[in-house]
Amino acid sequence: MLVALLPGDGIGPEVIVQAKRVLDAVCGDALRYEEAPVGGAAHKAEGHPLPPATLDLARRADAILFGAVGDPDCDGLERHLRPEQAILGLRKELTLFANLRPATLFPELADASALRPEVAKAIDMVIVRELNGDVYFGEKGMRTSASGRRQGYDVMSYDEDEVARIAHVGFQTARARRGKLCSVDKANVLETSQLWRDVVIEVAADYPDIELSHMYVDNAAMQLVRNPGQFDVIVTGNLFGDILSDQASMCAGSIGMLPSASLDADQKGLYEPIHGSAPDIAGQGKANPLATILSAAMMLRYSLGKAAEADRIEAAVAKALAAGHRTADLGGSVTTEQMGDAVLAAL
Amino acid sequence: MLVALLPGDGIGPEVIVQAKRVLDAVCGDALRYEEAPVGGAAHKAEGHPLPPATLDLARRADAILFGAVGDPDCDGLERHLRPEQAILGLRKELTLFANLRPATLFPELADASALRPEVAKAIDMVIVRELNGDVYFGEKGMRTSASGRRQGYDVMSYDEDEVARIAHVGFQTARARRGKLCSVDKANVLETSQLWRDVVIEVAADYPDIELSHMYVDNAAMQLVRNPGQFDVIVTGNLFGDILSDQASMCAGSIGMLPSASLDADQKGLYEPIHGSAPDIAGQGKANPLATILSAAMMLRYSLGKAAEADRIEAAVAKALAAGHRTADLGGSVTTEQMGDAVLAAL
Ligand SMILES: CC(C)[C@H](C(=O)O)[C@@H](O)C(=O)O
Ligand SMILES: CC(C)[C@H](C(=O)O)[C@@H](O)C(=O)O
Repeated sequence: MLVALLPGDGIGPEVIVQAKRVLDAVCGDALRYEEAPVGGAAHKAEGHPLPPATLDLARRADAILFGAVGDPDCDGLERHLRPEQAILGLRKELTLFANLRPATLFPELADASALRPEVAKAIDMVIVRELNGDVYFGEKGMRTSASGRRQGYDVMSYDEDEVARIAHVGFQTARARRGKLCSVDKANVLETSQLWRDVVIEVAADYPDIELSHMYVDNAAMQLVRNPGQFDVIVTGNLFGDILSDQASMCAGSIGMLPSASLDADQKGLYEPIHGSAPDIAGQGKANPLATILSAAMMLRYSLGKAAEADRIEAAVAKALAAGHRTADLGGSVTTEQMGDAVLAAL
Repeated sequence: MLVALLPGDGIGPEVIVQAKRVLDAVCGDALRYEEAPVGGAAHKAEGHPLPPATLDLARRADAILFGAVGDPDCDGLERHLRPEQAILGLRKELTLFANLRPATLFPELADASALRPEVAKAIDMVIVRELNGDVYFGEKGMRTSASGRRQGYDVMSYDEDEVARIAHVGFQTARARRGKLCSVDKANVLETSQLWRDVVIEVAADYPDIELSHMYVDNAAMQLVRNPGQFDVIVTGNLFGDILSDQASMCAGSIGMLPSASLDADQKGLYEPIHGSAPDIAGQGKANPLATILSAAMMLRYSLGKAAEADRIEAAVAKALAAGHRTADLGGSVTTEQMGDAVLAAL
């Protein structure tokens, strides 16, 4: 089976190296790897954030392990050349429409959350975020308004098929967990959200065993602080999912801990830590590689049919944390490589 | 001076009654009041959530004290007849473009926050939210997509004048505080945000004394949990402001505590608690009236030139809390009216 390694920018390469070491230890020769540049690094090397050969590799591979993209040096570039376009392009070109972002707190890290320990401990949810539509991919641009002023615009929209397809993922995810699905929208203001809500209710007819609720996004942002333990699975659009999943990650401790999967309809997927490229600490050996190592575990489980190997990795991460290893984001001073060593030792 | 009282739906009337008692005690005959229906209550009585006479009163008044709107009985109505349209209509018709939402924790309530006390205590910020544009007021509707599917859409947009006008409020608010302004956008994905960022940077030339930073909205949602003490003033658009200000309120304890002001260019304003109509507890005497009482204090300070009276009310609220009075949202069992009594006694 072929795994595409796309390290990207900033701390991306450092954390991918550690994840690769862990994969080697667990899977040996069962996996083959090819690496390609992506993001700002690809723009520097080849003039485009998502070069054709990189996209081709991503298509050929059975799964993709992705580091991070984002580079302040690229801020002045036209939008279609910026690093972020690489991840947006991969999601769209490969129809990776279902983003699964689990937020759970390793009990060993209860003291790393900004929330009170008793509030943080109760967090055990998955955010299912739509990745192929919404205001991310609608028509957008700069124009001149009726009164002659510069105006920026972006069209938010969803059609019923797009909503139904992610709603099914939400209901199925809930069925495999505690059976509760909360759909988040802003139907009191947005027509896009009104359609979203209507279609989620239609799809619910197929899942009488799932307890469905609806919440406005402003209330959801509040409830994620007030009482995050109330959530099992949240399903929401691309923009609200972007905001709420970053927020939820922090409730669960450090953003340096959380993996994600972006899946197509056949469980092919791209796996990435939810943190960004963190240019301020790149190359200093300070990055926490655990989110990427846990993303590799998700890859084994969801796309490569290796659930036992995934379990081994997750257990090793818990063991490394229990042994007290902490990178800077967790209040410690262990380096990226030392954290990799600790996971390898625990395997 | 004329104050328009618009109690609205759910717990709106109950909390307005208590705020009116406090205003009477502090201002006596210096203020006149006229009351009018708004929201679901107005739709029931007069067939429209914002009847002409209510809008006329709002225009004539020197300031508006608003309860809350929102009524599940109205969920089936066409969008333009729903309760929420009343508050959106007032903001737009009166050009109340600048929404100020302070988030601070009364030290007496340190134990009510879901955040660790040391994190919660450091919160002292104002969120400046634009209220007249963004995806709230762009073209929107249902249409049929190219492939014949139902599609909902909403156009997000800002022009340079709209951004400049709220940016000035942000910079001036920062100048009156600790001199730090953080502008929140999603410029890596949205053209609307790119214009927002460009214009904020242009306006910054007038405020060399203010320390300006930019943050993506997903990161901001995370930082508001991780380290909310880093923020002084946040300026952002209508949609992101809706989400982040509800989130920030909860970091600061209970949403039942936080007031807000929505101002036009001449400091005329509408004042409302940031909580909603809470239909589940309406009429039970359980609502916390303090957010509305504190909104009345903001009204005295910003629109009616009565800063000393505003100070007296705020001090009385702190005293009532220090004396241990707690409504249900704060973990106590004091009724809405008893909390009003406690503030009156403290005056
Ligand atoms: C890099 C950026 C375009 C991206 C997004 O907004 O989707 C990121 O924030 C994420 O959540 O993966
Ligand atoms: C009631 C609703 C339309 C409103 C909004 O989204 O602006 C509310 O959430 C608020 O923040 O005042």
